[in-house]
Amino acid sequence: MVIIMKNDATKEQIEKVIARVIELGLKPHPVYGEEKVIIGVIGNEDILRAHPVEVYEGVEEVKSIAKPFKFASREFKKEDTVIEIKGVKIGGNNFVMMAGPCSIENEEMIFETARVCKEAGAQILRGGAFKPRTSPYDFQGLGEQGLKFMKAAADKYNMLVVTEVMDAKDIELMEPYADILQVGARNMQNFTLLKALGNTKKAILLKRGMSATVKDLLMAAEYIIASGNPNVILCERGIRTFETYTRNTVDINIIPSAIELSHLPIIIDASHGTGKRSLVAPITLAGLVAGAHGAMVEVHPCPECALSDGPQSLRFGEFDELMRKVRKYLEFEERVMG
Amino acid sequence: MVIIMKNDATKEQIEKVIARVIELGLKPHPVYGEEKVIIGVIGNEDILRAHPVEVYEGVEEVKSIAKPFKFASREFKKEDTVIEIKGVKIGGNNFVMMAGPCSIENEEMIFETARVCKEAGAQILRGGAFKPRTSPYDFQGLGEQGLKFMKAAADKYNMLVVTEVMDAKDIELMEPYADILQVGARNMQNFTLLKALGNTKKAILLKRGMSATVKDLLMAAEYIIASGNPNVILCERGIRTFETYTRNTVDINIIPSAIELSHLPIIIDASHGTGKRSLVAPITLAGLVAGAHGAMVEVHPCPECALSDGPQSLRFGEFDELMRKVRKYLEFEERVMG
Amino acid sequence: MVIIMKNDATKEQIEKVIARVIELGLKPHPVYGEEKVIIGVIGNEDILRAHPVEVYEGVEEVKSIAKPFKFASREFKKEDTVIEIKGVKIGGNNFVMMAGPCSIENEEMIFETARVCKEAGAQILRGGAFKPRTSPYDFQGLGEQGLKFMKAAADKYNMLVVTEVMDAKDIELMEPYADILQVGARNMQNFTLLKALGNTKKAILLKRGMSATVKDLLMAAEYIIASGNPNVILCERGIRTFETYTRNTVDINIIPSAIELSHLPIIIDASHGTGKRSLVAPITLAGLVAGAHGAMVEVHPCPECALSDGPQSLRFGEFDELMRKVRKYLEFEERVMG
Amino acid sequence: MVIIMKNDATKEQIEKVIARVIELGLKPHPVYGEEKVIIGVIGNEDILRAHPVEVYEGVEEVKSIAKPFKFASREFKKEDTVIEIKGVKIGGNNFVMMAGPCSIENEEMIFETARVCKEAGAQILRGGAFKPRTSPYDFQGLGEQGLKFMKAAADKYNMLVVTEVMDAKDIELMEPYADILQVGARNMQNFTLLKALGNTKKAILLKRGMSATVKDLLMAAEYIIASGNPNVILCERGIRTFETYTRNTVDINIIPSAIELSHLPIIIDASHGTGKRSLVAPITLAGLVAGAHGAMVEVHPCPECALSDGPQSLRFGEFDELMRKVRKYLEFEERVMG
Repeated sequence: MVIIMKNDATKEQIEKVIARVIELGLKPHPVYGEEKVIIGVIGNEDILRAHPVEVYEGVEEVKSIAKPFKFASREFKKEDTVIEIKGVKIGGNNFVMMAGPCSIENEEMIFETARVCKEAGAQILRGGAFKPRTSPYDFQGLGEQGLKFMKAAADKYNMLVVTEVMDAKDIELMEPYADILQVGARNMQNFTLLKALGNTKKAILLKRGMSATVKDLLMAAEYIIASGNPNVILCERGIRTFETYTRNTVDINIIPSAIELSHLPIIIDASHGTGKRSLVAPITLAGLVAGAHGAMVEVHPCPECALSDGPQSLRFGEFDELMRKVRKYLEFEERVMG
Repeated sequence: MVIIMKNDATKEQIEKVIARVIELGLKPHPVYGEEKVIIGVIGNEDILRAHPVEVYEGVEEVKSIAKPFKFASREFKKEDTVIEIKGVKIGGNNFVMMAGPCSIENEEMIFETARVCKEAGAQILRGGAFKPRTSPYDFQGLGEQGLKFMKAAADKYNMLVVTEVMDAKDIELMEPYADILQVGARNMQNFTLLKALGNTKKAILLKRGMSATVKDLLMAAEYIIASGNPNVILCERGIRTFETYTRNTVDINIIPSAIELSHLPIIIDASHGTGKRSLVAPITLAGLVAGAHGAMVEVHPCPECALSDGPQSLRFGEFDELMRKVRKYLEFEERVMG
Repeated sequence: MVIIMKNDATKEQIEKVIARVIELGLKPHPVYGEEKVIIGVIGNEDILRAHPVEVYEGVEEVKSIAKPFKFASREFKKEDTVIEIKGVKIGGNNFVMMAGPCSIENEEMIFETARVCKEAGAQILRGGAFKPRTSPYDFQGLGEQGLKFMKAAADKYNMLVVTEVMDAKDIELMEPYADILQVGARNMQNFTLLKALGNTKKAILLKRGMSATVKDLLMAAEYIIASGNPNVILCERGIRTFETYTRNTVDINIIPSAIELSHLPIIIDASHGTGKRSLVAPITLAGLVAGAHGAMVEVHPCPECALSDGPQSLRFGEFDELMRKVRKYLEFEERVMG
Repeated sequence: MVIIMKNDATKEQIEKVIARVIELGLKPHPVYGEEKVIIGVIGNEDILRAHPVEVYEGVEEVKSIAKPFKFASREFKKEDTVIEIKGVKIGGNNFVMMAGPCSIENEEMIFETARVCKEAGAQILRGGAFKPRTSPYDFQGLGEQGLKFMKAAADKYNMLVVTEVMDAKDIELMEPYADILQVGARNMQNFTLLKALGNTKKAILLKRGMSATVKDLLMAAEYIIASGNPNVILCERGIRTFETYTRNTVDINIIPSAIELSHLPIIIDASHGTGKRSLVAPITLAGLVAGAHGAMVEVHPCPECALSDGPQSLRFGEFDELMRKVRKYLEFEERVMG
């Protein structure tokens, strides 16, 4: 941490800050310039976060130099984390495709969608049973019945299941059905949920909040890892900006950024991110090329009849076409389906 | 809802959309222009949200014309909602001050802070027992012990208690201690929590998410009201923008906006919003003048020693000074302390 | 400046950076911690901006500690700048009201508006002769003829004139008519224009760009001052966020922020900022209370017939009402009309 | 345009709005619902933009249905615009690479960089002679001397020249040296400059403003086209968000969005967009895959010694590596270097 004193800080004020740093068990390194004094402090920054010195008179600003996350950082673990579930590999040189409807609407549609997605090459079936809906008047999902349908469909077609968990109390109920528990963007900083997910053996798909920075996302991952579960998959799904043509703005930059800062896998969700069917394929492929370890795509047998998010769901033929391109790009990059 | 067809939409596509609208039990009103056709649909928009027609070929855009919230809207209830708790009035012509430390750190400090805040004119004691901390390594709060301290301090000084609830499972535990349960910005769209709060008799202080619009905030309030609890207080606490000088950007515009759109009270939290002690007073007063029904302010006996958010906490003298101005402004505007 | 080395930076890399700092004529102060090394450099940061060391191997980040503007800073000049033009004082304890139509549409309307604004207490007449319109098909202003009308109206009612300059080549033409030349938000970083305005004797009203930080705004002011003209008035007019209910989001926080960082006066423009007539008065008053040295408000004899920005223009009666409140608040705060 | 009346709008208010629409020469189509009335108006929306009806009592909102730009729209011209300059094709199935230093620093470096960029496959040499610098104290460019160096280097290596024009008055001076005149992000809404560029025969590279939507960008293009110059190339260079890890957030979504809405070519500038050398290659390739018609990349013989933007400039070897990937991806997509 670097403490920058104001230009007109008095000698007494400077000494008080130095004394405080020592009192907290840290070692100050003051640098006296012509205009101002800065005090370098190297050591456990957590102490200074809990006992901030910004409050002292004469302090202009305190700049952090350590990353606020540890287990999630590339410095802590140099090699890419590869999470393996029933033979499917997520991370490293592997690419996974998570596909399926926004909501599980009935048994038939989830079986049909699973079949088509699997044939096209997806390894993981997505689908919502408990839906976080902005409006209380929208379809809220089939609940456990939906999970049963999805699990049966995934088993039949030899796929994994990823589905969203909205509350810590539902984890136990969901574990028998899901291979990967998804934390939605709106819950990225639901710390109670994050901590509870530290105790499950399931992998966690952690979606970036709509106004979260890459560091916020990694800090949320840190909560899960520090609570006991290292199997975290990051997911970019669009941030909120002033642009109104797309529903959100998918931030491709976070993919190479997260890969620089962390060893965790990161995937891209262009369906929720753009909200427009026509943009799903180009943005998914852009994510792949920028380094994403996988993608999540909404696929629906009949987007016209979907109970949620129809406008952004790919038709079967469109998904097939996308998967053909995905495979060719992977081949070209010497990467493989995970 | 207005359905705008593409310039080159075929007659067949237009008819298909019209047929779909009729099939959903609604009445279409097509308007044929030279370049394009638009189809007005007035009626229950919920049906069209569940069964979107954006997906149909030839549709360029669907524009909603109804507000997505009902019980929270000014159209539903013309007069301001005034929530009365143990004689304290929140809403309408009344102004409430919620003051106290970020976290309850120990018994002594919460009693001392309560005494000073009450003497200065605050009616409601704030303080965190369960803390949502961005880092898993930060102080996480005293838990129920903190609630006990706070309740005792509030009782002694005849104040109400507002404190944050982070999970639906904690509601029952917190009810005996709290008069107002706060939903933090990070949980504004934790729909499980919102629905659970519909079943409590306590008033709810609902903080705006960092990237939520005024409509998102009102929709979150709608969840609580539709689930059975009409006593919702809105709270602006800063949105995320590109500005880095302040921690967040307090959006004063939402205060008159929410008052136009809704009958619910709205208050301002300039402490979390700005993250800078020097800005708390001017922004709190700006909020009051823009129409806020109250404010939340962090006050700490010794910001230098605070375990959280010291840099934005007012000292006792500063809070006293702020309250003097608040009272004068209210008098000038013919409003009263609630 | 503080140079933060990567955890795994080699001794050689560190020495190379230190050598570079010395070569640039600066004095490095390395601090060796357990995990990493930081190098404090105090001195002329401009040199390091021109010759960045981020580029060197082993450097993780370079943090600036000096403010990038000088003449505009509160450190350079402690007392508030008060600009006096024909007896009107802008800055310090004074408050100015700039009022008038968005565009000067004809002679009659500008005279009528001037009369009403002056009677209500405004000291400065605003009006656009050259209009920056987002669409090339919108009304582009009357040009010099408009300036003549406005100057005549201002002279008759003893007001100052503020109007927007869109290009350096127009400055000479506008000088005889205007007392204050306005730089629009879209031109805040039109550096050619800023430098040219350094050579005029007129005061400059510098509007904040829609995605500019407070430091960007002060840096733009620095351009004008460094080019020879110290008479710069800052203006907040709304930033772009994800909120769609208001046209922009007026950022009241920048008012006390700019006053902390700079000695220059700052005013608020709630008309362009909110785009909604109903919000102009509450946001203007919020700005005043947060410390603004003035306000700019659009007033039109008949908003229904306005050629531009009618929806946000106050009617005569509404402006009168606003000015009554402005005067009462100023009195209460012991401030005066400038 | 669709005019949405308030729920409680009176019959008289509705009739007044209808009368106004007729008075403006348009045909109203009122639709009477149970709760509210909407009035469809199809025809020349420009008239309603100039004479807004939002101002009338009882009007809740006016929604535009026509696109505000015409010549730039895909509806106006179905096929991709391909701009051909001295044999280089920009747009359609072609990909162009614009490479070179941020600033032209001296004769030797621009010749050396041109040679390397050309050998690697770039067709267009970029370089700044007049630099828009946020700080007045930063290096401002060599001016016309720089243009001479760049033109000579481009001629020697058979490249085109793209360079930034900062003011209308400089156009004439720059025309002999430049093939493409660049409008910087900060000048995207400098309407005086845009109109002046309508009169040149040179192609224009129009960079997106930091808070501009895709519609704002196309409207700025419309200014240039409507003023007489149809040869506009759009450029995404990063928008401002709350993320601080990258300098800006490159918005890949705008590439397929702009291609849907417009026939103009669009390219990507990942150097300015990310501000980080390590992200330039992945983001450039992501842009290519999302459909970009070209890229702009900063290349410098010695980023450590660059007078501006060193930290984001590729070294020669890195650029070579990037171009090898660009060619392979193009081949795979059956696209060609333009």
